[in-house]
Amino acid sequence: MQTDHSSLQIFGIRTPLIRPGDNIAEILISSVENSGITFQDNDILIIAESPLATAENRLVFLGDVEPSGKAKELALQYRLDPREMELILQECDEIFGGVPGAALTITDGTLSPNAGIDSSNAPEGYVVLLPEDPQASAERIRSDIESHCNCHIGVIVGDSRTQPLRLGCVGIALGSSGIVPVEDVRGSVDLFGKEMKITRKAVADNLVSAAQILMGEAGESIPAVLIRGAPVQSTKESVEMPLFSPDECMYYSNIRKQ
Amino acid sequence: MQTDHSSLQIFGIRTPLIRPGDNIAEILISSVENSGITFQDNDILIIAESPLATAENRLVFLGDVEPSGKAKELALQYRLDPREMELILQECDEIFGGVPGAALTITDGTLSPNAGIDSSNAPEGYVVLLPEDPQASAERIRSDIESHCNCHIGVIVGDSRTQPLRLGCVGIALGSSGIVPVEDVRGSVDLFGKEMKITRKAVADNLVSAAQILMGEAGESIPAVLIRGAPVQSTKESVEMPLFSPDECMYYSNIRKQ
Repeated sequence: MQTDHSSLQIFGIRTPLIRPGDNIAEILISSVENSGITFQDNDILIIAESPLATAENRLVFLGDVEPSGKAKELALQYRLDPREMELILQECDEIFGGVPGAALTITDGTLSPNAGIDSSNAPEGYVVLLPEDPQASAERIRSDIESHCNCHIGVIVGDSRTQPLRLGCVGIALGSSGIVPVEDVRGSVDLFGKEMKITRKAVADNLVSAAQILMGEAGESIPAVLIRGAPVQSTKESVEMPLFSPDECMYYSNIRKQ
Repeated sequence: MQTDHSSLQIFGIRTPLIRPGDNIAEILISSVENSGITFQDNDILIIAESPLATAENRLVFLGDVEPSGKAKELALQYRLDPREMELILQECDEIFGGVPGAALTITDGTLSPNAGIDSSNAPEGYVVLLPEDPQASAERIRSDIESHCNCHIGVIVGDSRTQPLRLGCVGIALGSSGIVPVEDVRGSVDLFGKEMKITRKAVADNLVSAAQILMGEAGESIPAVLIRGAPVQSTKESVEMPLFSPDECMYYSNIRKQ
């Protein structure tokens, strides 16, 4: 069907329920193969942060958490469980503000609601913290899968996030390996041969958003997605998710703590 | 290859250069067919706002714009062309702040840089305003294509947007027709049978982000993308892009004008 134009395919990958201590790379390899898919060069595998964090023992039983006075006070302000608020304070660098149910936090330069701590897809009474180092997790999973399949792949750890004044969650990449996560297209030319004033493409974020079309947020048991044919830049080097200078961010000039 | 799991396909659609007054639905129909693709039920067609706005005569020659005193003053503050600033003031409801090169504006409840006005992919000396009513454009294009192909499709008008403190642009839907743009998954259950506390899926925004993997931002001549197999809710009714109550937005509580 496809002749002279580009195309890509996205496959949802069902897995068994992922438990603390599981080897996530092994589960992904067997789940991809059970789906009838053989890894090919430049396939990109996206894994949701919650099952990854579960495998990495980032489940916390709330009954074991003793909230501080500050946590109790902020929990009232943001209408959160004081024990969850305690974990938020431990995980984030700063709280900027927020709304009932969602404190706007920053951790290592990335904004999240509630430091990314979530009770969804965790056993009753537990919450899941974000993976401790999603970039390192992506590197490790890529290395393990590449050893098995003998081809170059990309791995992205994905999460979901709201955008300002937009209803609903889109994808965001917490870490990536094997691809260039943000492509700089400044210097390229537009349809009229003029140099583009902007822009950079948030390739990894867009790939996670594409994955979320199949992943869902609830109990679909599709925690991973394989994307084939995406025209992205592959790399064997370790490329961290680049941080955006707050001075360049049109939102941040207004978001910063008041 | 695909057996018991979901999958989707994304096709980049090349078009001729789109000019003021062009019939965009006709161009999309012929471009899809020239790509060897026959429309199927529930295909989703995504068209970038810039070529759509060009067809809708939203090109403005900057030499014809007389900037006001206020526009001159704000142009200095945001380091923009005073004539472009004049158009921004005409197009937006309010300016919240911003950074050099990008004033953060709100128009009909949607945040944009510079009211979405862009000189990229416009002829020398011109800028492109956003389509006047992207929702109506999506409805009209869907109606025209459905009459031709005799099946139900979705149409989304897409743009690109940065996210707070993230480097690079992702997709955003300015208007959509034929699909439910934001799916409410509250009330569904997670992997452990617990009710999901959140969340809504920004389906239309995710579809545009997926499209942008193939579209690019520069002179690739791929202003449209067809997505096949996406498990989204189709509808024959007109569903506006829902607005997010500022009271519920974790960013907005800090973004609002200081």
